[in-house]
Order: sequence, then C-alpha cells, then structure tokens
Amino acid sequence: MGKLPGLASAFLCGSLFLCLYGTVSGAYVKYNTGAGVVQGKLNVHLVAHTHDDVGWLKTVDQYFVGSNNSIQGACVENVLDSVVEALLRNPNRKFVFAEMAFFSRWWVKQSVETQGVVRKLVDAGQLEFINGGWCMHDEATCHYIDMIDQTTLGHQLIKEQFNKTPRAGWQIDPFGHSAVQGYLLGAELGFDSVHFARIDYQDRAKRKNDKSLEVIWRASKTFGSASQIFANAFPAHYSPPDGFHFEVKDKAFLPVQDDPLLYDYNVEQRVNDFINAAIKQANVTRTNHIMWTMGDDFQYQYAETWFKQMDKLIHYVNKESQVNALYSTPSIYTDAKNAANESWPLKTDDYFPYADGANSYWTGFFTSRPALKRYIRVLSGYYLAARQLEFLAGKRSNGPNTFILGDALGIAQHHDAVTGTAKQHTTNDYAKRLAIGASEAEAVVNTALSFLVNNKSKDQHKVTAVKFSQCPLLNISFCPPTEKDIPEGRHLVIVVYNPLGWKRTDVIKIPVNSANLVVQDSSGNTIEAQYVGLDNVTGNLRNFYTRAYLGKTSKQVPKYWLLFQASVPPFGWNTYFVYKATFKGKSKNGFVSVMESPQKETVEIGPGNLKMSFSLTSGQLKSIYNIKTGVYLPVQQSYLWYGSSSRDDGQASGAYIFRPKGSPQNMVSSSVPLKVIRGPLLDEVHQQFNSWIYQVTRVYRDKEHAEVEFTIGPIPLEDDDIGKEIITQIKANMATDKVFYTDSNGRDFLKRVRDYRADWPLSVTQPVAGNYYPLNLGIYTMDKKFELSILVDRATGGSSIEDGEVELMLHRRMRFDDARGVGEALNETVRVNHKLEGLTVRGNYYISINQIGAGARWRRTTGQEVYSPFVLAFTHEKLEDWKASHLTKATAIDPHYSLPPNVALITLQVLDNGSVLIRLAHLYEVDEDTEYSRLAKVELKKMFPGKMIKKVKEMSLSANQEKSEIKRMAWKVEGDGGQEPIPIRGGPIRHPTLVVELGPMEIRTLLLKF
Amino acid sequence: MGKLPGLASAFLCGSLFLCLYGTVSGAYVKYNTGAGVVQGKLNVHLVAHTHDDVGWLKTVDQYFVGSNNSIQGACVENVLDSVVEALLRNPNRKFVFAEMAFFSRWWVKQSVETQGVVRKLVDAGQLEFINGGWCMHDEATCHYIDMIDQTTLGHQLIKEQFNKTPRAGWQIDPFGHSAVQGYLLGAELGFDSVHFARIDYQDRAKRKNDKSLEVIWRASKTFGSASQIFANAFPAHYSPPDGFHFEVKDKAFLPVQDDPLLYDYNVEQRVNDFINAAIKQANVTRTNHIMWTMGDDFQYQYAETWFKQMDKLIHYVNKESQVNALYSTPSIYTDAKNAANESWPLKTDDYFPYADGANSYWTGFFTSRPALKRYIRVLSGYYLAARQLEFLAGKRSNGPNTFILGDALGIAQHHDAVTGTAKQHTTNDYAKRLAIGASEAEAVVNTALSFLVNNKSKDQHKVTAVKFSQCPLLNISFCPPTEKDIPEGRHLVIVVYNPLGWKRTDVIKIPVNSANLVVQDSSGNTIEAQYVGLDNVTGNLRNFYTRAYLGKTSKQVPKYWLLFQASVPPFGWNTYFVYKATFKGKSKNGFVSVMESPQKETVEIGPGNLKMSFSLTSGQLKSIYNIKTGVYLPVQQSYLWYGSSSRDDGQASGAYIFRPKGSPQNMVSSSVPLKVIRGPLLDEVHQQFNSWIYQVTRVYRDKEHAEVEFTIGPIPLEDDDIGKEIITQIKANMATDKVFYTDSNGRDFLKRVRDYRADWPLSVTQPVAGNYYPLNLGIYTMDKKFELSILVDRATGGSSIEDGEVELMLHRRMRFDDARGVGEALNETVRVNHKLEGLTVRGNYYISINQIGAGARWRRTTGQEVYSPFVLAFTHEKLEDWKASHLTKATAIDPHYSLPPNVALITLQVLDNGSVLIRLAHLYEVDEDTEYSRLAKVELKKMFPGKMIKKVKEMSLSANQEKSEIKRMAWKVEGDGGQEPIPIRGGPIRHPTLVVELGPMEIRTLLLKF
Repeated sequence: MGKLPGLASAFLCGSLFLCLYGTVSGAYVKYNTGAGVVQGKLNVHLVAHTHDDVGWLKTVDQYFVGSNNSIQGACVENVLDSVVEALLRNPNRKFVFAEMAFFSRWWVKQSVETQGVVRKLVDAGQLEFINGGWCMHDEATCHYIDMIDQTTLGHQLIKEQFNKTPRAGWQIDPFGHSAVQGYLLGAELGFDSVHFARIDYQDRAKRKNDKSLEVIWRASKTFGSASQIFANAFPAHYSPPDGFHFEVKDKAFLPVQDDPLLYDYNVEQRVNDFINAAIKQANVTRTNHIMWTMGDDFQYQYAETWFKQMDKLIHYVNKESQVNALYSTPSIYTDAKNAANESWPLKTDDYFPYADGANSYWTGFFTSRPALKRYIRVLSGYYLAARQLEFLAGKRSNGPNTFILGDALGIAQHHDAVTGTAKQHTTNDYAKRLAIGASEAEAVVNTALSFLVNNKSKDQHKVTAVKFSQCPLLNISFCPPTEKDIPEGRHLVIVVYNPLGWKRTDVIKIPVNSANLVVQDSSGNTIEAQYVGLDNVTGNLRNFYTRAYLGKTSKQVPKYWLLFQASVPPFGWNTYFVYKATFKGKSKNGFVSVMESPQKETVEIGPGNLKMSFSLTSGQLKSIYNIKTGVYLPVQQSYLWYGSSSRDDGQASGAYIFRPKGSPQNMVSSSVPLKVIRGPLLDEVHQQFNSWIYQVTRVYRDKEHAEVEFTIGPIPLEDDDIGKEIITQIKANMATDKVFYTDSNGRDFLKRVRDYRADWPLSVTQPVAGNYYPLNLGIYTMDKKFELSILVDRATGGSSIEDGEVELMLHRRMRFDDARGVGEALNETVRVNHKLEGLTVRGNYYISINQIGAGARWRRTTGQEVYSPFVLAFTHEKLEDWKASHLTKATAIDPHYSLPPNVALITLQVLDNGSVLIRLAHLYEVDEDTEYSRLAKVELKKMFPGKMIKKVKEMSLSANQEKSEIKRMAWKVEGDGGQEPIPIRGGPIRHPTLVVELGPMEIRTLLLKF
Repeated sequence: MGKLPGLASAFLCGSLFLCLYGTVSGAYVKYNTGAGVVQGKLNVHLVAHTHDDVGWLKTVDQYFVGSNNSIQGACVENVLDSVVEALLRNPNRKFVFAEMAFFSRWWVKQSVETQGVVRKLVDAGQLEFINGGWCMHDEATCHYIDMIDQTTLGHQLIKEQFNKTPRAGWQIDPFGHSAVQGYLLGAELGFDSVHFARIDYQDRAKRKNDKSLEVIWRASKTFGSASQIFANAFPAHYSPPDGFHFEVKDKAFLPVQDDPLLYDYNVEQRVNDFINAAIKQANVTRTNHIMWTMGDDFQYQYAETWFKQMDKLIHYVNKESQVNALYSTPSIYTDAKNAANESWPLKTDDYFPYADGANSYWTGFFTSRPALKRYIRVLSGYYLAARQLEFLAGKRSNGPNTFILGDALGIAQHHDAVTGTAKQHTTNDYAKRLAIGASEAEAVVNTALSFLVNNKSKDQHKVTAVKFSQCPLLNISFCPPTEKDIPEGRHLVIVVYNPLGWKRTDVIKIPVNSANLVVQDSSGNTIEAQYVGLDNVTGNLRNFYTRAYLGKTSKQVPKYWLLFQASVPPFGWNTYFVYKATFKGKSKNGFVSVMESPQKETVEIGPGNLKMSFSLTSGQLKSIYNIKTGVYLPVQQSYLWYGSSSRDDGQASGAYIFRPKGSPQNMVSSSVPLKVIRGPLLDEVHQQFNSWIYQVTRVYRDKEHAEVEFTIGPIPLEDDDIGKEIITQIKANMATDKVFYTDSNGRDFLKRVRDYRADWPLSVTQPVAGNYYPLNLGIYTMDKKFELSILVDRATGGSSIEDGEVELMLHRRMRFDDARGVGEALNETVRVNHKLEGLTVRGNYYISINQIGAGARWRRTTGQEVYSPFVLAFTHEKLEDWKASHLTKATAIDPHYSLPPNVALITLQVLDNGSVLIRLAHLYEVDEDTEYSRLAKVELKKMFPGKMIKKVKEMSLSANQEKSEIKRMAWKVEGDGGQEPIPIRGGPIRHPTLVVELGPMEIRTLLLKF
C-alpha cells in the first residue's frame, strides 16, 4: 500500500466533498509560465509545433478533414481549432505553424470573429508562421522555381492576412538539405535561420561530438557570407525527448501529476527527467540555449494535452533548478543564439545525400515515381508560361485562372509528393490536382492566346474567340487536332508561343496521318518538313495509356510524326499552317524518312555538326564527335539494373531508400537491335535494348547535343521476384579523378567527389547508393580537355561510380517497403480491364560534349529550353481568313529587344491588386563562364514596351517585404578571415532608365505598377 | 478524375488565395443548430455523452489524468476540459455527464473563472448532470445502502456547487437492471426516467418487435405506480448509429464534408445516412422522438470533433427533411415523451439476468472476485457504524474522517469494480483505496470511542485519549492485541459497539494463546467462555496471508479462539475485560472444547434449539431440525464445481460470463472427513471436503440458524487446465415447483421461476447460467409447509436448478478471458516470495428453516446483523483504572428506547454544515410478515435524547431536495386499470411529537438541525 501524499493537508475543509480534495481555490494551481529567457541558466526553448505533411499516407484533404483515419488518425482541422483555444488559455503559450496549404483551408472556414482572434494571437507572437510556404517542400527533387513559387503562395497569404513575414526556415523533415535551400530559400527570403532534423548519421555523430550541429551555412559559392544562414540540425528527430510526447491518446503519455490527492504524484520525477534530458542535449550544443521540438507528425490534435503538460513542466522545472524552460519559437531561439556572441562552425555546400544508417541511403527517392516527377516538371514550365500569357492578355476576374495549377504545384512540391514517397492513392490525388490545375491553366492559355492573336481588332469585345486546343499527351503521339483529317477548305493552325526571353528555333513534332502535307509559316513560305513513321513502341504506349487514363479504345495510331522547324521571337508567338497538298495548291514539301537497317559496322548519324557513331555488331554507341568544336570522345551508353535489396536483407530498397544488391546487371548479353532513320532535320537511332527498354537517339541538324528518348517499362518483377532500379550508363574515356558535378535544385552546380565528404571522414558502406546525388538540371564531369554533360527532363538520381562514367537512375520498381513509413512497396502499375502491368516511363535526356570551360553555356541555355519548351495551340481555320484577322507573329516585348543570354525571366505574374510580380534570374555562377559570369543588364522598359512603369519595388524573394527591409544578423564564424571576395550584385534600379542589373546567380524580385 | 464540386462559384475573389477558396466570409458557414423539438417531424435527440468507467482497464486516477495509455487511450481531464470549450463555442450544444468521482477531481483543479463559466453552462442547461452518483454503480452486486450513499455523494456535490438536482437515471452500461434501481434509485431520487443499454438479447428482440423498449417500470411490489419510472432501453448499445462516431483519431471517423472546394464533398450522402438510421430506429420506437446516444467509453477527449460534426448534421438534416435533429438530454427527451400523450407498456420486476447471446449469460460477475466483494460489504457496514460514531462523538474539522472511506466505497460500487470485472491492477487500486479509507475510518472510530467511553469527565479537553486498536483480520485469527500476553497488572479491554437500533447479543470470538483466561463484563461478572483450538487451515491461512499482505513472517499461530457472549444496547457499547486467571484473583471460567472424531453413524450437533445431523459414513449433512418451531427438513449439503467453458468452446466463462461446461462435478467421491467440537456456546462440525475446501458449520446455543464458514482455495487449475466455478449446493426434500426468491440489492425479494421470464417466451439455451440471479441478502425457497432460507455475507450468484435445491456460487478461477473487454482471465493469485497460488476465499453463509410465513422475520433481522456486526475495539489497561474513569456501558439513545424490529437506521451522518442526515428504513415488504409488514413508528426525540431537534426536513433519497419539491410525471400505461392498492406511507412528521412513521419498504431521508 503506497503512501497517499499530502493527505493530511486536505482537511481544512468546509463542505462534504471538499474534505477530500481540499478547498476549491487551494487545489487550483496557476502555473508560472512567463519566464522567457533567463541569463545564466540552461534555457530549454520549447517549440510547440505540428508536422503536417501536405499529403503522404492520406491525401491533403483527408488530412485536413480527418477522413480515412483507418490509415492514420490525423486531422489538421483539429490541430488548428484546438491550438487557437489552447493559446487563448494562456498568453505565454506559443505555437508555430508551417504548412499554409493546410492553414488556408482552415482560415477561409473561420468566422470573422475567429479570424480576429487569430490575428491577435499572431500579433502577440503566440502563433508564429515559420517556413510559411504552401508546403514544406522537398530539397532534392524540386526545381528552384517551384520552390520559390510555392513559398510565395504561402508568404503572400501570411502577408495579406496577417501582415507578417516569416523569419525562420523550418525544413524539419526533408530528406537531406540543398544548397539552394540554404542560401536562396533562406537568406533571400529574409530568414535568419533554418532548422532541420535529417542529416547523415555519420555527420550527425561527428557534429554532436564537436558541438557543430549548429553552423553558419554558406551554401552559395557565388554569394558566400552574403547569403549565409544560421542552420540548426537537431541532435535527434523533430520529436521531443523521450517521455515528453503529449499527444491526446498517445500510448506513451506520461503526464506531470501534481495533484497530491491523486495517486501517482510524480512532479519530482518528471522534473528530473526533464533536467536530465536537457543536460544531455546541452552537452552537444553550444551556448546555454537548447531547442526542444515539442511536436511530431499531425500532433496537437487536441492541443491542450501538450500545453497543459508544458505549463506544468515550465512551472515546476523553473522553480528550483538551473534549467529554465520557456515557450519559444525558432525566431526567439535564433535571437538568443545570436545574442550569445558565440563563434559558429562554417558549413558550405549541402547536406546530400542523407542516410540514417549504414545501409539506408535515402537516394532512391531522387528517382521514385519518375512519371509524377516529370508531370510536375512539365507543369512547372507550363505554369510559368501560362502566367506570362495571363499577364499579357490581361487577367480575368472570373473564368479559369492559373491559381488552381499554382495550388496543385505548391502541394506537389511537398517532401512526400514530388519525392515519390506518398502512398499510391495520395499520389493519384496529387496527379488529379495537377490535372485539374493544368486543365484550368490550359483554358487560361487558350483564352489568352485567343485574345492575343486577335489583337488586330481594337475592340476586344467584338473579337470572336478562337477555339484552341492543346496536346499534353504529344509525347505518346496523342493529339486529336493534328491527327484528324484537316477539313476541306480549312487549315491546321498551330500557334507557337515562346516563354523564353530569347528568339528561339526548335523542331516541332506532331502526329499526322498523311505524308502529303504542306507546312507554311506566317510569312507564307512553305517550310521544310520531315516525316518519320511512328514506331510500334510509341503506338502501343499510346493505345494502352489513352485507354487507361482517357477511356479511349481506338486501336488506330497516327502514321507519322511530322517535324518542322519553328522560329519564335522572345515572349512572342509565331503561327504555322499545315494543310493537305493539292494539285491546285502548293505541292508537298516533306521528306519521308525511312527506317533502315544499317549494313556497315560503323553507323554514323547526324545531319549537322554533331556526329554519333554506333557499332553494328554490338548495336551500341561508340563515340561522339562535334565537327565544329573538334571535341571527340569515345563513349559507350548502356542500360543496366540494380537488384533491389529485399526485406530479407535487413534493409529493403523502397520509395525512399536505394540499396542495390550486388553489381548492376547489363540489359543485353549480346547485341542490341538497331535501326536508323535519316532526314534533313534530324537522324534517329532506334535501339531495342530488351523487351521493355526502347531508346531513340536523335541528332538534330541544328542542335549540338544528342537527345535520348528512353521508354522503360513495364519493369518485370514476375520472373525473378527481384526489384529493379534501372539506370543508363554513359562511359567516356576520361580521367575524371572521382569528381563530378550535380546541380542543386536546377540552379547551382556542386562539386561531388566519389566516396568522400568534406565535413567528415566518410566510412563507405554503400559504394553506389552513397554516391548518388539528386539531379534537376543535370550532371557533368570533365578531364583536362573535355566536359561531358548530361541534362535531365525531371528530377533524377545520378552519380559517377567510376571515373569517366556517369549514370542516371531512370525508373524503379520493387517488391518491398523500405520501412520509413509509407508502408507500400514502390510498385507503380497501370490497369486496362484485366491487364495490370508495371508503369512504363518515357523521357529524354540530353548529352553534350564540350571543350573544357565551354559546357556551362550549353547547360544553362539548353536547361532553360528543356524547362520552358514551346507552348503549342491548335485550331482549324481557313488560312486566308486567319491571316486577315489575326496577328500571326509578334512579341510582347520591344521587337528589337531580347533578354541577355545569361538572364531568364522566371516569374511574370499579375497579382490580384493589379501589380505585376517579376523575377529575373542570372543563370550563371561566379567563374562558370568567361563571358556570361558577369553583370547582366535588363531594360525593363523594353520588356514592357506598351506600358508605363509607374513604380518598381525590389522585394524579397517571396515578395512579402521590400528587399531593403530585410535585416541581416551578424554571426561570428570560426576561422573566418572575412577576406572572401565580395559577390557582384546589381545596383539599385533607377528611374528613368529602369535597368535591372544582375550579378552571377542573382535573382531579383520586382513588383511593378503600371 | 472526379468532379470538383462548386469550383465555378469560387472565382468572384479579390485576392490571391481567396481565388481558390472563395471569399473569406463566404466559406464560413454558420450552422443552424437551435431548432429544438419540432412537432410533426421525427425528432432525433442527440444526447452527447461520454461513458467514463470509474476504473476498469485502468485505475480511476489513471483514467482521469490519462496515464497508462498503452492500455487504453483515455483521459477524463481531456473530456471535461474540451467539453467546456466546445459548449462555449455554440450555446445550442448540450452535454451530459454522469460520474461525479471524475467530475470532482476535475472541478477542484479549475480556477474560479473556469468554475464560473461552468456554472453558467450548467445554469443554461448546456451541461447537465445525469445519474450524478459518484460512479455509475452496478445493479447486481451492490447493496442498496451503498447505492444510496454513493449517489448521495455525487448529488450533494451537484447541489452544493451548482444547486441542481439530476432528473434522469443513466445506467447505460450495468449488466442488467435491478428492481431497487428501478424504483428506489429512481423515483425516490426524483428521477423521471432511467436509460440503459443492456437488456437480454431475447427481451430486446421482442421489445423491438412490439415497440416496447420504452416502458413504465413499476419495480416495487410494495409501491407499484407510486414509485414508477419511465425506462428507456436502447435499441442497440449506448454508442451512436454506425458511421456517426466522431471521436478524435477514430478510425471510422466519417466527417460531414461540406466544403465544396475540398474533394470528397459528401453532405447529401451523410444526410441520407442520418435519415436512414433515424427511420430505422423510429420503426422500433413509439412517438416521433428517438434518442441517439452520441458517445461511448471515454469519448469526447477532444469534444469539438463530435460537436463540429453534430452541428453540421443538425444544420443539413434539418434543412429539407422530415427529420429534425436537435441537441438534447435525457431530461428533454423524457419531457417530449411525456408530452406525447402515448400509452406505454408496463414493466414490473427487474431485468436480470442479462445475456447478450445464447451462450453469454452475464451471471458470472455475480460472484467474480468474492474477496473484493466481501471487503466492500464489510466496509459498507463499517462505514455506517463509523459515521454513527463520528456523529456521536462530534465530528472533527481536522484529523481523520470517514469521507475517505465513503469516497473509496463510492468508487467501489462502479459497475466494473464490485462486479469483479476490472483488470487485476485496477482491482488492486480499489482495494488500496478501501484500505486507506478503512484505516482513516478506523482512526475515526478509535477517536470517537475514546471520546465516548471517557465521557465521565465533563471537560473533554482533559480526557486522556485511549489508544484503541481494531482487528480487521479477525477472520483469519490475526489480532495482535488479543494474541499477545496480557501485561502484568493490565487487562485486555474490549469495547463492543452495536450499530443496530436494537439491543443485541452475539458471540465474540478472539484469538488467544492461553486457555487460562477470565472474561468479565462491565458489571464485574465473570461470564461464560469457550475455547476452541485453532484449526490448521485457519493457521495456515493466517500465516500465508499476513505474510503476503502485511509482510509478517511469524510461523506462530494463536492456540485458541476465545468465545464469549456480549450483550450491547442499541447504538451503544459495552465493555468486556479479559485477563489471566491467577490464584489470587478469580479463577478461570472457560470451557475448552476438544475436537472429537465421532463414532456413531448419526452425529447431531447443536447446544440449543437448532439441531443438525450428519452422517458418519458420508461425512455429510443429513437433516436440520428446530426443536422450538418443530420444523424438520432432510437436507444435504455439498460442494461441486462447474467446469468453465474455454475459448475453444466459442464463448469462454470469464469475469462477466458464466458458461458451465457439462454437469457440475462433486468434490468428493466417497466420504468427507468430519470432526466435531462441542461446547456451551456453540458446536462446530469441521469438514474437509477436499484438499482446498474446508468447512465449519456452527450451531450456536442462542441462534436458530446454522452458520457455515467456508474456506475455498486455491482452486487448482494446474492438473486439468479446466477453469472451475465452485458452488455449494443445499438439497432439501421440498416440492418447490421451480420457484425461488432472491433479493434485489439486499432489499426487496423477487420471485424467480426457473426457465421462465414473465416478459417473453424464454428460449432456454443455458439451463444453469440462465437461471442464476444476483444475491446480496440471500435466497429462499418454500414448499407448502416450510421455508428454506440462506443468507450470504457478500454479493453472490445463486439459483435453484432443481426443485428443493438451492446453490450459491462462492468462488471462481479460470484460464480465459470472456471477450467482453477486460482482456484478462479471472485468475486471482497471491504471491509470497516464489510461491504463487490461487486466492483462497473464506466466508459465511447462514441457513435457516422456518414454518411457512415465518422466514421473513429471520431473514430481515439476521440480514441486519450480518450487515452490521459488532464493532470491536481493543486496548490494555488496568480494569480498575478503566472502570474509574470510563463509561463501560451506555447507549446514545434514550436508554428505554430501541428502534422497532422492522426499522433500521441506515444512515446517521453529520454533514459539514452541522446538520445531520438520517435515513430510516422499514425492513419489510408489503405482506411479507403478518406482524411486521405494517406501519412502524420511530420517535426521533428518543433517538437523540440529549439534543434539541430544531428542524426536521424530509428530503429525497439522496438528500438533494426537499421531498415535497419532487414533481412526478403522469404516464399513461397500457391496460392500467388504476385499481392497484395504495401503498402504506408514513404521514408528515409533526412537532412536537416528531414521530416518523414508515410504511412497508419505506425509506425516509431526514435532515435534522439540532
């Protein structure tokens, strides 16, 4: 029989039941929770947070409303409802919230009264938005433009509704951390700090040992300290120390029991637990400030459970110990760190790849769900173009708009979305959102183009709208407006929009059913055309996938691809007309390419400067040669697969983790069947590597790189039951000395050294997976003479496992879950009736060889072209009628102007208040190119020739504050001599010239008023 | 790709994110939830409730604070915290709460502000207390005095803190429903209705079929319609219809999704689900009012999750359907039912036994954990006595009090406590609470007796306190003050208190180590004493259990029981002195009984009127004969066990369920060893039925019944792996025609007919388990001449499975859980070091044979004596000194007065405000006894002779309102002729006579001011 503490004190009572429980007011304890930081004590900053994945095991809406709880008992509506109540109970309580895709859903449903209450909580600092993007984006597989856009979406909401600008980055869950996150989505947003949980386990061990978890991170080679940030890597996860997890119904809930009249009074014990955990953390942390992340995934569903316990802990811990617990936020914590006048270790580069164990490299997700990754990347470029057109044509206050797509893309950047690490049903939901958004944006583009091309008429209201259609499934030859017979007396009208700031020529390729067509440009000239017979692989793909996703059951496929070259001014369009050749009209002008089986041992292709040679015997690539630059490289290219480790191996390969089992298997034992197609615009080599890998290599007359189109799938699992991770390997005869370069979110290139980490002595446990890095733009390597560069069309994992070798992981399919939470094997399938098969993936990569020092120019320019292809819109009308009433070729900017080749317009968007948001990005890093890594100048007036620019405000990257308002914290850095070169930055934008200068890698965000 | 509903409407927007979500105020929906009852519609009364077991899988404190959540994620503090917030959000919301043991824990911890808010919610009818006892007591295994006491505890809190009186009984979970609950803890509390979920599955089916789930229940034979109540048996459980369960994190959470901008909008579907479920229930219910119990076990941990969904359902359902949903309570529901002017079926008797399936009779719990049941019953009587003494000596404002025991007993009445259906660790917690409470009450008794016996001195402050001790383990011969050598020159002083209202003589029995003692009464007379050698079974029990529970390691046992007869005035005490016989002083006066092995075939025992004959051959009882009444009955008595069904049988026997497998097994194959002890005060027969069943039958010279002490255990499971449920069987040669009588909560006796239910044609599936009934007082049967009565000392299951047979289930031990939630097999064990054995249970039952019509008098009187034994307090002092300064014999009432033999004082308690609560209970039912079933009179003045009674207020049973304030609802009853006899009730209590009249079964609750 235990002691019943405090019993004796309870009997000064005046009523029946109070005899048991003491006087009413006596039993109530008013907890003292308002200490704040206390000098001289160990300050434990309790950061109350919830980590709310914008889709993962459930869809974003299911998480919000709390449906589908059998998968996960999670409801963000509960979190926000209850947090507000909990904050109101005690003005010392604080809470931070990150994911605005959720907050926005909640916010619009609140009454005006509740909104008022929440605004007060925000003003009082009780509720603080951190990170504040639409989601907590991934850092490996997101494009930097998407990261900016989704962050802007959230920051704009916060600014608009609360007049606040988030101060802290909060990337607690993403699986490794990128340089672009560190500097661009950090300092450039006005953030003072960034906080995260996931860094390599070896890195973490070392950093705990030398108290270097917290660093000053200078992630940009170009900007150095000018874009540094205080980066806080947690000593463990983003959950609280063991025993301090206070979620409603949590099994491990260990309440502070301070009522002496109940059994199990445990205040001393809980206080001791707290102090011990604090001291343990203090032992690996500089200064007397430590942060406890008081939360976890979808926690605070009944927020009071957490706050009640924290109230008690703060009250009792602070009573008599040398530890001071306080309600805090990352901002308050960072202020305290900054005030401590400590010197911090310096960190450069990034935190990739991430591993949480010797055999657990999270490098699989760089490639997982390649089709989703591609869809997101395609729509990212399309979203940029659509907003341009929305601006150019004038934004409508009703009708379709681009925001639906922006919202869907914002959600898709989540670190379980584009990463491919969500459950299948959630992935389907992401795709559905994107499709709805794309469809809306398509309508915007159609409407805008209709308006723009009709511009001959002054009276906009009298213009007859053109019924344009577009062909998002062009890659599998599905394009109804070009396939169908052109009606008698009509022409196929193709309006080609160029979202880049430079004049541009590219080959357009549409499926047609006749080789007897004429292509005419807007000046009335018949232009060169090439017909290529549709291959069976594409035909089958088209039929299966249109049936699976559109319900189309036709077995017919178009006969040809029609190719012709289009040339379009910057931010402008051109019009092409296709029609049947008749005896009366112009005769056909096309070249019909024939698929030939070569006879000679060396098969050379390439109608222009670039030549590629293949071996007839092996069927494989032998060399690449550029006549113009004189670069010649023996190159082999092949497909292989890594067998995925299974559950029986302890750690399986899965959606997150890449863990190959043994050496990669080559696809072919003997020779690859090889076919060649030649023509005036391009040559093609078709290679059937095996029954499920088909490749077309295209060498264009007017391009100095090869385009490789791969079609991979269904990856077979049935025969050998082994998961497979498919790579393409390019082997050149180059002494690359372990070094290769990969991009950071499509922007900066980082130097990678095989089997090496700059920050700690690497113990190599996974010689392949541990050397994989995320690619968004591409990868290159070099020897003393040449560069070999490869660009990708989506987020992709890549590496260089041997000198001279580069590999891309293009597709993955496996049997097992890798036990990191998603609970499903990454096994994407497609069903048509009873036929269920693995997902086939089609895509492109681009190979270029260059003299040393010349590769950047190709990579940067081609990168922009890959990201922002021509936008094609189709309709049918009589050529003469069209020309009579439409502008066939025009540009939105000064016709004599184009952007400098080292600058891209990465945002052009009209805001709801009528002002226009633009972002100009310098495309080169410091020292990247002898000519282009210099200050560039953009003349705003020439970009908006018809408009009067009244006001230009330079903003932070997310446009939520004026750039000049950003205050930078000063930090002392260990061993910092302060002698690093000062980066080149553009100067102020002055009236009346309105020239925007951009230094290397500079992005300038401007708000324009016309 | 699904349709995105309402998308088109969302674009009249003025800001970035609002374009997606519509205008802020447009998306907020103010739900219309204030309809109330609507005539002409089907009204669905949503009763928001939480069912919070006062201990079950976790202890009451663990449930309150939410610890030990790995067992069950339950925290009542969360419920109450969050319900208050939720009620404040919408004044139409309502919530009912029942268990005041939990509410009191919460209430005292709240700030004055919160208490003010809660009082407003209660005043507004948003928060309503229903039932309102300390717990939701069981109805099978509770004594009616305990039921009253625990209800009073809760009702007093509600009255005191909120000035409210609960109107509805809410016994939703107890496993069957008793007559005493129906009338006494119903109408007599001022309740209009009682609501519950558990009735027999066959009964339920029939009642659904003829719409008789809701009835007017006249549970009292004596009072009939005068104590009727509207009783609502739910059509299913006390949870909501499927799909309307809205607990936070619940897997089946199906939210109403009314935001057209999120996917999965489902308002129409959910409204249809609601209407369908309502119509289904309406089809089995009279009137257009149905009740939905919107809650479940420990639900509303984040109350907003429920209320938010109910808000929406009320809003959308009421918009256009013929169904009207409303926030309601059982009181509002009952008002509506009453207003409907419907005729209701009549229900009499009770709802026992409860079965939820053909092989699932919940009749095991009538006996489960017999030691706990006994402990509760012992302390119940002790609590009554202790409060008497607390009053008599004057209640202290500090120091020990009886409230701790009242609280522990209140908790122990919970339907998973005394029932024996809680987990072992929770049961230990109940026992611990009781032990702490008992220890406090013991101190109260000691202090009070010390004060009372010292009363010779007028100056209370100068009195030297007596250090009394008591011996709660007397039943296993553990009593340090009597065992130890009486110090030289001192005497063992025994103060004997009689808590009954009648003068009373009984045999006192204490363990001693010498047969050379003298017993002297308060008048100085040496009185007759008998020594009985301590048997080995008791000695072993004493050593094992004192070691297990007190840590005493002595192997020594007392040599003798010393027995002597004590005679004590009503509400008074007498003092006895025991000392060593010396040559100088008085010589010893005791008779040392010797255990003999009889030689003759018929062994007759009994020094008085009652004679019992045993067979030497079989060792068993043959007949009972009362010389005085001339009643002679051949009677056999034996022990048997039912094998428990196991999990493999589909439904196992367990803590709740009794499901015997096959016929009962007799304990002995041949003859039972038999020993006889004879003496002047009593004879004993000791029978060793087997190695683990020992029985002593005692026949006293001055008692006309036999007392049977059984010692059962450890029940072996090891040999045959079969669970065993032990019964004693008494077989008399009587033609009882299937009829027997069992008590309801120790108060009314109900007629039982084997294999028969009055309310429906019983399909007999369990001929044994289905005929078991709960006993608290006893069981009797009769033929045309005689009555055979058995009284029990605790809650016990019993039946008559054959004519002339009566059986009691005394102990149970089994291997399997019966799958009703507790998740443990009922397998009680005791450990001493490495020795773990099944729990041994010791107890008494009492057998009497009477002429027909004469049994009630024995049952009622003996029942009171069993419930309220003498209270013994021991000390050592010199006899002469003691007598010089102490009152050795006295009564608190007029020395010439005693209560009439048909009346008991069941409460005498001084309240904190100084007023005194008394309850007087008539002990006989109408027509039960020719003489005693009449109006009885109690003279208050003579009960409190030294005091001036200023004011007498007659109160409701729980003393929370004046009796006259109770308003009774009128109900139409089907086939009610209104000609039932009017029960006899006492008239008003008038000054100056202050005579309290009591009709049969009447309990009058009075508040006295002195």
